[in-house]
Amino acid sequence: MSARYIGVDVGGTNVVAGLVDEERRVLARAKAKAAGAKSDAALAGLIARLAREAAAEGGAAPEEIGGIGIGSPGVLRPGDGLVLYSCNTPLGPTELLAPLREAWNAPVFLGNDADCAALCEAAPGGAVHGCRSAVVVTLGTGVGGAYVQDGVLWRGHNGCAMEAGHMTVRADGRRCPCGRRGCWEQYASATALKRMTREAMRKDRESLLWTLAAENGGKVGGRLAFEAMRRGDRTAKRVTDAYLFYLAAGVCNLINLLQPDRLCLAGGVAGERDEDLLYPLRERVSREEAARCGLPRTEIVKAARGGDAGVVGAAMLCMNH
Amino acid sequence: MSARYIGVDVGGTNVVAGLVDEERRVLARAKAKAAGAKSDAALAGLIARLAREAAAEGGAAPEEIGGIGIGSPGVLRPGDGLVLYSCNTPLGPTELLAPLREAWNAPVFLGNDADCAALCEAAPGGAVHGCRSAVVVTLGTGVGGAYVQDGVLWRGHNGCAMEAGHMTVRADGRRCPCGRRGCWEQYASATALKRMTREAMRKDRESLLWTLAAENGGKVGGRLAFEAMRRGDRTAKRVTDAYLFYLAAGVCNLINLLQPDRLCLAGGVAGERDEDLLYPLRERVSREEAARCGLPRTEIVKAARGGDAGVVGAAMLCMNH
Repeated sequence: MSARYIGVDVGGTNVVAGLVDEERRVLARAKAKAAGAKSDAALAGLIARLAREAAAEGGAAPEEIGGIGIGSPGVLRPGDGLVLYSCNTPLGPTELLAPLREAWNAPVFLGNDADCAALCEAAPGGAVHGCRSAVVVTLGTGVGGAYVQDGVLWRGHNGCAMEAGHMTVRADGRRCPCGRRGCWEQYASATALKRMTREAMRKDRESLLWTLAAENGGKVGGRLAFEAMRRGDRTAKRVTDAYLFYLAAGVCNLINLLQPDRLCLAGGVAGERDEDLLYPLRERVSREEAARCGLPRTEIVKAARGGDAGVVGAAMLCMNH
Repeated sequence: MSARYIGVDVGGTNVVAGLVDEERRVLARAKAKAAGAKSDAALAGLIARLAREAAAEGGAAPEEIGGIGIGSPGVLRPGDGLVLYSCNTPLGPTELLAPLREAWNAPVFLGNDADCAALCEAAPGGAVHGCRSAVVVTLGTGVGGAYVQDGVLWRGHNGCAMEAGHMTVRADGRRCPCGRRGCWEQYASATALKRMTREAMRKDRESLLWTLAAENGGKVGGRLAFEAMRRGDRTAKRVTDAYLFYLAAGVCNLINLLQPDRLCLAGGVAGERDEDLLYPLRERVSREEAARCGLPRTEIVKAARGGDAGVVGAAMLCMNH
């Protein structure tokens, strides 16, 4: 029987562990809210528990696990298993891997979450498979970035390049917990989309957004504004237009700087309907990008593996070792 | 006798041709205002004339010239000798090299001007020589960018990557001729610094800026605000602070994305005193960059070859072929 691996995607909102086989299929999953873990030790414990649950759910005994990979947001020192800083999790410098290493007899690896998504999308079946150069942008609790050249991740001289979420697109703009102002993440993440939706709702009590939110138990999620916009709500349209404006600003920045063959959108927001996200984004970028004067252009695509990319890519950290 | 080359730096303000030897020394120069050339053909003719003048000034007969390199701003198709689009010169798609090829019996090459500066600075004696990875930013009429890895230029899949000047740092900000808004170039170029100086002067008729400009024949150059700031003028200090704010915003973006070993500032503004430009820039970036939480950091330096980098790098386009 071929080896199986555990991949853990540590998001700002959810922590998901998956049992993954060598063909990069997810055989079983276990999931919990990240907010449940109030300390570094609690998060490490949660990861260890979810890894056990995913293995058990998939019927894999611990000794059958070939390795455990953790994908975490933030600035990492993977060799030491350290998360040095993360903007959207409550972690300070923290050692995530030690509890796993104690509990499991398998090798444990740490990688950036956007890098994990990129690893998965660059593999067969992924949206940037076979590209000479590709940028992957994750639109989730925060905004992450990764650059893949000929299938190999590229992270700069110190391993923390492609912090695309912490590129200023509005100088003097919103404060970001990272210490900068106007970071792209403050305008293009799912968190930002929800905030913009709530702000618009406060200004327009008549908006369909209120009705749809009520039908959804009062929850203002990342799909609400798109759904209300599709039903003709003008306030919602202003929200999705503003979101697309900022998404395009950062995507066009990345293209003007890096000119990859493809730029791939991953993360929750990327799952939005193509008519409402991908196509209008392509149109906006094509009007602004430097290459429009007659050079081959970057193709903007969305992730092929959807929500699984983070878990599968984390497991791939082990496969590639 | 070893070969000599002609390098031509086509700037938004000046066109400079230099006779360059294989040790990358500039033996002779010829210079003219770019504004004198009102058409594509006129610019190509001006380049050809300055090339002849530089060769004659250095006592080199045309048959002694091993090659002619042209460094031009904008988006290029070097193989075809085409400048497809340039933001700061009046050129549409234009063939710059044909008149030179007709007039000279030497090979002629075209390259991006920031790439040329980077080639020069990556060679022995340059500020990023020996770096594994380096970003070079040119602060002139516009803002250009280049990325060098192990001494080799990197330009993305279509040859026009690193258009750092056309990275939006202020969404909804100033219109840029490139079609975007809030481009870094609109805030961090020498042109922007002069504009900000003029705007400040209009608002404060008592400022020392007026006195110093008058002493300079009424000319508002890129050094004026820094000079008045050093003499204690508060209006000038607001200009240089604003300039540094935007310069730092873009430099920090490039570092958070690319994490090079070194980032090198070239072009006219980079010649400003270290106390007033380089050191405060380093301080601002060090407070914001992602790697500050415990990783090796990018060293920010200024060009070692100063105003010669463009001419020498253009000549190096030939040497490297």
